[in-house]
Amino acid sequence: MTQANGYAATSPSARLAPFSFDRRTPGQLDVALDVLYCGVCHSDLHTARNEWQNTVYPSVPGHEIVGRVTAVGDLVSKFKVGDLVGVGCMVDSCQHCAPCADGLEQYCENGFTGTYNGPEQGTGANTYGGYSSHMVVRESFVLGISHAEADLAAVAPLLCAGITTYSPLRQWKVGPGHKVGIVGLGGLGHMGVKIAAAMGAHVVLFTTSANKREDALRLGAREVVVSRNADEMAAHAASFDFILNTVAAPHNLDAFLALLKLDGTMTLLGAPASPHPSPSVFSLIMKRRRLAGSLIGGIKETQEMLDFCAQHGIVSDIETIRMDEIETAYERMLKSDVKYRFVVDMATLKAA
Amino acid sequence: MTQANGYAATSPSARLAPFSFDRRTPGQLDVALDVLYCGVCHSDLHTARNEWQNTVYPSVPGHEIVGRVTAVGDLVSKFKVGDLVGVGCMVDSCQHCAPCADGLEQYCENGFTGTYNGPEQGTGANTYGGYSSHMVVRESFVLGISHAEADLAAVAPLLCAGITTYSPLRQWKVGPGHKVGIVGLGGLGHMGVKIAAAMGAHVVLFTTSANKREDALRLGAREVVVSRNADEMAAHAASFDFILNTVAAPHNLDAFLALLKLDGTMTLLGAPASPHPSPSVFSLIMKRRRLAGSLIGGIKETQEMLDFCAQHGIVSDIETIRMDEIETAYERMLKSDVKYRFVVDMATLKAA
Repeated sequence: MTQANGYAATSPSARLAPFSFDRRTPGQLDVALDVLYCGVCHSDLHTARNEWQNTVYPSVPGHEIVGRVTAVGDLVSKFKVGDLVGVGCMVDSCQHCAPCADGLEQYCENGFTGTYNGPEQGTGANTYGGYSSHMVVRESFVLGISHAEADLAAVAPLLCAGITTYSPLRQWKVGPGHKVGIVGLGGLGHMGVKIAAAMGAHVVLFTTSANKREDALRLGAREVVVSRNADEMAAHAASFDFILNTVAAPHNLDAFLALLKLDGTMTLLGAPASPHPSPSVFSLIMKRRRLAGSLIGGIKETQEMLDFCAQHGIVSDIETIRMDEIETAYERMLKSDVKYRFVVDMATLKAA
Repeated sequence: MTQANGYAATSPSARLAPFSFDRRTPGQLDVALDVLYCGVCHSDLHTARNEWQNTVYPSVPGHEIVGRVTAVGDLVSKFKVGDLVGVGCMVDSCQHCAPCADGLEQYCENGFTGTYNGPEQGTGANTYGGYSSHMVVRESFVLGISHAEADLAAVAPLLCAGITTYSPLRQWKVGPGHKVGIVGLGGLGHMGVKIAAAMGAHVVLFTTSANKREDALRLGAREVVVSRNADEMAAHAASFDFILNTVAAPHNLDAFLALLKLDGTMTLLGAPASPHPSPSVFSLIMKRRRLAGSLIGGIKETQEMLDFCAQHGIVSDIETIRMDEIETAYERMLKSDVKYRFVVDMATLKAA
């Protein structure tokens, strides 16, 4: 075992603070890595504050992780010391159910192991995430990174925000000739715009804030629609092949379903704390539309996403923070005051 | 023009009563037919009583029509005098939009022409349905019938209830090895059970009435689940490839979404007058499930359905009534007191 340093919440109301804990000695199939950067996802905050009522304390969040390999087990073949690697939302799964066999570990029938808040396969022990000095992760859940070293901080959010938007865009075969809507321009939405545009789609960004127009166009959207403006919305009726809805706050889904053409799909990525107004069945029936959901992505697809982003020069738009600024970052995140993702420079942990 | 006799509603509160009106002289592309049988669909009642607030009076309902050809226009090539034919929910569409070009006239971007309640293409005139002595219908909206003559009355409901269930089962590629749920055992549901079973699926019927068990098994279901019984429902968690939900009354969709496996779809056929409780986004996200809708079917697919049913010996379970019993039939239909479809023997119209 080795001692790791990190930042943890010890109760729903406690501020995150320095915390030391043990990491296992790397096994034959394990990769050990020093964490270089860790993105700040809204799930980190939900978990630190027990907003999903399932947090095991102490809780070390962080699942948008970029690091450098420091040791590998004897049977590790894909990585060597010095490699740049990523770790996302999962560090293990049962590896024998049908979804796992299909590379869809996020839908593991026995429950995947979260990068933080566990439970570890077999033992059920808690797991500690990327707000920490180093990690030990099973090789099959470690991703290779081919981006330039200068981009590493901005690569970190791809491990959650990137794959969460890439996976449904791929599943629904978004590509050239498609008109694709992205609802919401936050951490997820800004990745959705970049990735859908790189896939060749005509991207339309829906936002409630007219002042996001310039930014959305810069990120790759061809059009920006202020969704509170009924006339702007009506001009796009029944014209979209696919809409990726990144907004977790309750809102009127019918306004967007009405924009889908025949056989169009809207995929929801966020589960609101209270329900959306019930969508109209009429909206679904009259054009054979579909309302769907999607959860992060599998490991194989995450590697595909990282390679796709490297090839297309895609990273996240970020603001780098020190580890001891995490609570301030959470407060700003709650006000959507970030363009578009905070990333902790983990070198600041050692200095802290 | 020829004079037709039928039954019409003249106001939302009027009982249906004998009504005479003109049918156009068959044009070069038209087929004229004597109506032999006409099924009684819940839409007939909704329209007769203006429950969708769009009824044009006088209103002659009926869109599950079987008849015999009495005349054909010069350019008609598919039918000849004496042929048995069917007419469903549509008698025309714009014929030039993308859905029409794809044989999906039910999703015509310019609005299809309903068999009753119009509007006629071009003129916008009202159309009169199958509660009538004879009809004149554009050839491309007339279906061929290859069932035995003895089955004709029971074939009529295939033109709406049959295609409405067949189309989504085909769209979602139901077949051998699939576990398929049918929610509700009424006019639509009993056709869904028969058709899904004939497609080779393992069919499970969901009902709130335990006393429908024997009937469902007779119709082709392998299992019957009383949906009010939480334990029975839980035993089927995450096991269905597809669920066809025929219930238009508001109900808890999550109870059924939870039964879908990864990437499973539930298609809704009925739009409730007041909304369903809002479905949980969590149900959709956690197994990448889809909630969809479907509206009748296109003409090409309706012909395919009729041929499929003839080949598999499928007809509707019906109760034949006289034309002057229509109001009684409506009242019984409102109490679900029919197994499973009323069909008007149109010979009784002449006698009336």
